Amino acid sequence: MTINERSLALHRELEGKIEVVARKHIETRDDLSLLYTPGVAEASRVVEKDEDESFNLTRRGNLIPDVTDGTAVLGLGDLGPAAGMPVMEGKCALFKEFGGVDAIPICIDSKDPDVIVETVRLISKSFGGINLEDISAPRCFEIERRLKEVCDIPVFHDDQHGTAIVVAAALTNALKVTGKKKGEIKIVINGAGSAGISIARLLLRMNFGNIVLGDIFGALCPGEEKMNPVQAEMAEITNKNREKGTLADVMKGADVFIGVSRPGLVTREMVASMNNGIVFPMANPTPEIMPDEAKAGGAAVVGTGRSDYPNQINNVLVFPGIFKGALKVRARAITESMKIRAAEAIASVIPEEELSPENIIPSALDKRVAEVVANAVAEVAKEEGLARI
Amino acid sequence: MTINERSLALHRELEGKIEVVARKHIETRDDLSLLYTPGVAEASRVVEKDEDESFNLTRRGNLIPDVTDGTAVLGLGDLGPAAGMPVMEGKCALFKEFGGVDAIPICIDSKDPDVIVETVRLISKSFGGINLEDISAPRCFEIERRLKEVCDIPVFHDDQHGTAIVVAAALTNALKVTGKKKGEIKIVINGAGSAGISIARLLLRMNFGNIVLGDIFGALCPGEEKMNPVQAEMAEITNKNREKGTLADVMKGADVFIGVSRPGLVTREMVASMNNGIVFPMANPTPEIMPDEAKAGGAAVVGTGRSDYPNQINNVLVFPGIFKGALKVRARAITESMKIRAAEAIASVIPEEELSPENIIPSALDKRVAEVVANAVAEVAKEEGLARI
Repeated sequence: MTINERSLALHRELEGKIEVVARKHIETRDDLSLLYTPGVAEASRVVEKDEDESFNLTRRGNLIPDVTDGTAVLGLGDLGPAAGMPVMEGKCALFKEFGGVDAIPICIDSKDPDVIVETVRLISKSFGGINLEDISAPRCFEIERRLKEVCDIPVFHDDQHGTAIVVAAALTNALKVTGKKKGEIKIVINGAGSAGISIARLLLRMNFGNIVLGDIFGALCPGEEKMNPVQAEMAEITNKNREKGTLADVMKGADVFIGVSRPGLVTREMVASMNNGIVFPMANPTPEIMPDEAKAGGAAVVGTGRSDYPNQINNVLVFPGIFKGALKVRARAITESMKIRAAEAIASVIPEEELSPENIIPSALDKRVAEVVANAVAEVAKEEGLARI
Repeated sequence: MTINERSLALHRELEGKIEVVARKHIETRDDLSLLYTPGVAEASRVVEKDEDESFNLTRRGNLIPDVTDGTAVLGLGDLGPAAGMPVMEGKCALFKEFGGVDAIPICIDSKDPDVIVETVRLISKSFGGINLEDISAPRCFEIERRLKEVCDIPVFHDDQHGTAIVVAAALTNALKVTGKKKGEIKIVINGAGSAGISIARLLLRMNFGNIVLGDIFGALCPGEEKMNPVQAEMAEITNKNREKGTLADVMKGADVFIGVSRPGLVTREMVASMNNGIVFPMANPTPEIMPDEAKAGGAAVVGTGRSDYPNQINNVLVFPGIFKGALKVRARAITESMKIRAAEAIASVIPEEELSPENIIPSALDKRVAEVVANAVAEVAKEEGLARI
């Protein structure tokens, strides 16, 4: 059976990848009186006087919704809210397994950013943070920005920032392996959607050299007419040399290729035209170029989203730890500094002496990573005065 | 320590009464590929083609939100959404412990029925049913009615129907114990809010004699000016003899008193004025009259919401089984017939020969009850053509 067939069979057998359980069994009259009526009235009265107590007296402090509208389910496009559910549930399972965070899927039946923002705001009193997922660009940028304004709990769009953070971590170690200097390199990011733009923004903030973003129409460059408003903004702050042209054009001489686009867009020749290239073709499940081909083209380091090749660049290394840390100190927000320190923390998990072209990023299954990320996030929250406890 | 103090301490220690867990641990690359990417894409594709598959391939088929706006938290009034959370969580724990149903708290930060209906509708694709809780009357009637119209999954307001069903069950057995005939009795229900009105509606449908509803202003009777619109409707279809007056007035000669109002409203003398009264003072945590007082007044049978006296009339006997049954057959709705059969099923758990004035209703902790209720609900769903599987 193929992976897809086996996965579908497992989904049918499991009837759900998550479930809700009681943290204390209810067997006796005393249990009922203490966990429910009449005793529970006291917890409600205490929370009414001081809402912060809801983080202590209920699961709120460790509970987040994994919110989607189903408009960008994996790489499959707009499948609708119900079809987003399997992915949301998988994410919720990962949140718990890797970060100890309780997450539940919330699939919203609307594509209107106003409606999505308001719906999430309206249910936010039940939660300690909000994860957004599989929402199409450029809507996702506005939805996240506005939710951050109206919610006093951390909001995080994983497709953007989770991906950006794990790429930044992999790139940090790839530079060490290749001896390239981060201020001097040219980086081509193909796919100017939520992930690509967020990667560009984070790398800019981390002072990674000259970044050129590309999309279907070619390089993002001021004046290009096919860009959406967010892409136009990005064009202004990237592409220092105002390069135009196709992906093949801009990849010439580049030090780094980051693909968050579509299978097969990159050839062996394009990799060969790079400057001892670091190649991260991360389209899922089939990358822009297969690792063997990229190696044959002379790539110095290759990383993909796939688990069957070395250097799996997977945001499961990020999101469980980000929320674990933010929830631990009850952070008011997840900030740019937290993202940068999270990336550095992930990179640091591999001791320098163990770094190699085949080993720039910890295994996606390494459960130590979430703890390291969580500690980094919690520290920054305290430094920035955003920790409530 | 008092119950309240012990409960608060337990809430602090537990940090939440529920949590979300993965139904299969994620330890290997294979787990990750099957439960998350790339394999999960197949489940999403299948659901996109046939939304009903979301009930098979995700937890949706066993997952419900326990929704409140915090406007009627227990008997405490409008405490707001965050303060509703401890009660919602307790309910979620009971849903799982008694019915095997996965439930999560959703506390909505709005009191506007339009907003509440729309918010629940927007998130309903993640769930197999919807439980409403602690929403003030008369808003709760409209909210439930409209949600039933816009959702193709069962909607159930437990404060109304859970209470009505368990009262109907207790009353059914109390009549057997006292030899009263259901068509010939006079029933006084005090407290014409969500529970009282729903009890009246269900008892009417079950052909329980003459019902008189009362509220702060006295008996509900056509022409009474202090009634809200829902109470005015109820006045038309109850109170056959158009009685006016205080609670004490209408209780004279009554066969049954059902209290869903406030502590201490009923005196020993009022009970003594009844006709060999069946007395269910269910205000929580302190009933309208304490059981010992009611007995001293000559009550034939007494039942309350309290666990420290016989005959605890608690809706935990109802809601886990109602949803367990509705979800099992993927019912489109929870109907009046299901409620009636659920009440009969609960009453039937006690064999006739074991019925006595001290034993008219199963223990709230009797986990067999949910199964019996679930089977009754599932059977009716099939009979009514509302079962999807």
